[in-house]
Amino acid sequence: MPESNQTVRVEAFSDGVFGIAMTLLVIEIKVPPHELVAVQGLGHSLLALWPSYLAFLTSFATILVIWVHHHWVLAMITKNDHAFLYWNGLLLLFVTFVPFPTALLAEYLLHPEGRIAANLYTGTFLAISLAFDALWRHASARLLSADAKRDKRGEAAQITRQYRFGPPLYLGAFGVSFASEAWSVGLCLVLALFFALRGSASPAAVE
Amino acid sequence: MPESNQTVRVEAFSDGVFGIAMTLLVIEIKVPPHELVAVQGLGHSLLALWPSYLAFLTSFATILVIWVHHHWVLAMITKNDHAFLYWNGLLLLFVTFVPFPTALLAEYLLHPEGRIAANLYTGTFLAISLAFDALWRHASARLLSADAKRDKRGEAAQITRQYRFGPPLYLGAFGVSFASEAWSVGLCLVLALFFALRGSASPAAVE
Amino acid sequence: MPESNQTVRVEAFSDGVFGIAMTLLVIEIKVPPHELVAVQGLGHSLLALWPSYLAFLTSFATILVIWVHHHWVLAMITKNDHAFLYWNGLLLLFVTFVPFPTALLAEYLLHPEGRIAANLYTGTFLAISLAFDALWRHASARLLSADAKRDKRGEAAQITRQYRFGPPLYLGAFGVSFASEAWSVGLCLVLALFFALRGSASPAAVE
Amino acid sequence: MPESNQTVRVEAFSDGVFGIAMTLLVIEIKVPPHELVAVQGLGHSLLALWPSYLAFLTSFATILVIWVHHHWVLAMITKNDHAFLYWNGLLLLFVTFVPFPTALLAEYLLHPEGRIAANLYTGTFLAISLAFDALWRHASARLLSADAKRDKRGEAAQITRQYRFGPPLYLGAFGVSFASEAWSVGLCLVLALFFALRGSASPAAVE
Repeated sequence: MPESNQTVRVEAFSDGVFGIAMTLLVIEIKVPPHELVAVQGLGHSLLALWPSYLAFLTSFATILVIWVHHHWVLAMITKNDHAFLYWNGLLLLFVTFVPFPTALLAEYLLHPEGRIAANLYTGTFLAISLAFDALWRHASARLLSADAKRDKRGEAAQITRQYRFGPPLYLGAFGVSFASEAWSVGLCLVLALFFALRGSASPAAVE
Repeated sequence: MPESNQTVRVEAFSDGVFGIAMTLLVIEIKVPPHELVAVQGLGHSLLALWPSYLAFLTSFATILVIWVHHHWVLAMITKNDHAFLYWNGLLLLFVTFVPFPTALLAEYLLHPEGRIAANLYTGTFLAISLAFDALWRHASARLLSADAKRDKRGEAAQITRQYRFGPPLYLGAFGVSFASEAWSVGLCLVLALFFALRGSASPAAVE
Repeated sequence: MPESNQTVRVEAFSDGVFGIAMTLLVIEIKVPPHELVAVQGLGHSLLALWPSYLAFLTSFATILVIWVHHHWVLAMITKNDHAFLYWNGLLLLFVTFVPFPTALLAEYLLHPEGRIAANLYTGTFLAISLAFDALWRHASARLLSADAKRDKRGEAAQITRQYRFGPPLYLGAFGVSFASEAWSVGLCLVLALFFALRGSASPAAVE
Repeated sequence: MPESNQTVRVEAFSDGVFGIAMTLLVIEIKVPPHELVAVQGLGHSLLALWPSYLAFLTSFATILVIWVHHHWVLAMITKNDHAFLYWNGLLLLFVTFVPFPTALLAEYLLHPEGRIAANLYTGTFLAISLAFDALWRHASARLLSADAKRDKRGEAAQITRQYRFGPPLYLGAFGVSFASEAWSVGLCLVLALFFALRGSASPAAVE
């Protein structure tokens, strides 16, 4: 199998799944029904959907950041193996699942049992961070191209350092979700912005 | 990271998101329920869905025009940076959101409070035009390839001139939405056709 | 803009739209509700969904055949222009719309007013065949590569001959839909198979 | 048609369909309604969705394994013909259909007539394995590149040996579905893991 073909196709397939998972999030924002609008007015009904907007924005930003980092990892490797395909598949499984906890959170954030929705929501992101960590460990140990090994030793070490923070931080968000639903979701949004900025702070990454 | 790989993957991912957002629009056109058809007949029930068709067509045409212009900008750059990925992400966030205001407009265009739906609809397009403007400013200032800088100075200046009109025109549509819902949506459809024709009028763009 | 980039990106975007439109068809096959199953049994409820299966299969086969022919046309051209992008956009608009008449047909094929659903269903395919015809006329007149012009004159003429049959045949199916809903849908399925076989009969096409 | 272009575009299109079918599975996991949560609590309502999770996981894993094998087959061929496009289309038809039996199984696994849902679910996977078998037979007989024929005779024979097991094993799962719904679904999950591991055991496949 030509090497170039390998990562190209994994990228294309993964990009498709990331893109569809991000786009499907929007169909979980439900148009308010006429009966509700008759009572509350349309403006108020739309404002009352803020948990849906928050969940949409947080999930979108998180998947986008993961996609950017996936892009970065795939750019460092020029071959893959069966194990990589299945670690990648595990990551995609969790990413694909995101619209469900997102919809659940939007529906139950303000409910007395909202904590369970926040547990599942932050837990899904924890699972994503663990799968990504495993993917990177496998890729960095076995799949770096000779060029990447020589030229990008520093960069690879830097990625490893950064990713070390992912799982503990999302474990923190999962912990917070037992105390406050809204704060744990807000923390996930902050984490997405944090990883975006950390990425920006390391120009070597994409240049 | 090989330069060619960079823009190829951003394009593929963006194309996926544009394509899915356009295709998801159709699932917001709801098949009329049997109870309504029993009263009004199927033909009349289908005609009464005209706000859905108008919203579908306008959103589809707008996303298509943005995709064509995105295609044009990406063709001029041969590298990208983290900031570009996140400006692009912001643009995709608004594009992904389009099915929600589209469904809302289809449901509430003829409602006494339809103005709010039209505000959100035209406001979303205004946000898209602003994000696209920011993407182009960043790309034209920092990411043009040496070739593009030398050969396409005139083309780049022309794009800059054209895009200057996007935000004010969509601000206009947003303003009109406070006076007349239907006119503001019609104006968005006209704007999509206008940008399509302006693009056609500048053959240098794609040849 | 590098020539090779142009058609690659149009193909990728179009492939995405074709693929999503085909895949979205399945979400219009609704799982029978428990109340219905309690009365009729699950087996009978599933058999009663045959209009959904027929509509799904016919729409899937039609979009697949169009995709194969789109693949064939794009392979003959190596550049595109703004007009091509918008003809292609018009084709994608109709393809994207297909899930709506498909769902409508599945719901109303056996209804006394099913004829209207069949009119819209066959009419959408007629519109697709006209848009494809326009796309091919434009592409064959203006966008064939020098190689294709020299080497593939015969092939291009053959495509032109074949496509001449598309619009009249779908006009026929549209006409039949006024007499018999089921026959007009069956005819669309036969047409998809017919175009598939005609394609197979001309080995020059893809070899 | 340039040879390289052919398989690239079939791959891109197929990847799109595989990716969308996998991602659409999640929208069949329905957020529990407030009335149910008021009676059972949110935690219990979520646990009661286990048939949805099982069906999601099994369908996701199965489509992922098929995608990995599809990737493997496409990597061995460098040309295609009309017959290949339509065998591939048949495979995609069955893959695209998967969300419907998945949703049906999730809804009716615990129902007295759940056997019918399990029949359709395992029967769909049987159809997929048969279509994949036909695709591989056609590809291996007619479309292997000269390189692949010379260098990969052993690999091709190995694929043939492996795939011989697919249809009988899924026929077995289909048979089991008449005796026990849950066991037949569990068997499909085990089969997906089995094919994943068998693939891993043959490192020649992707290296």
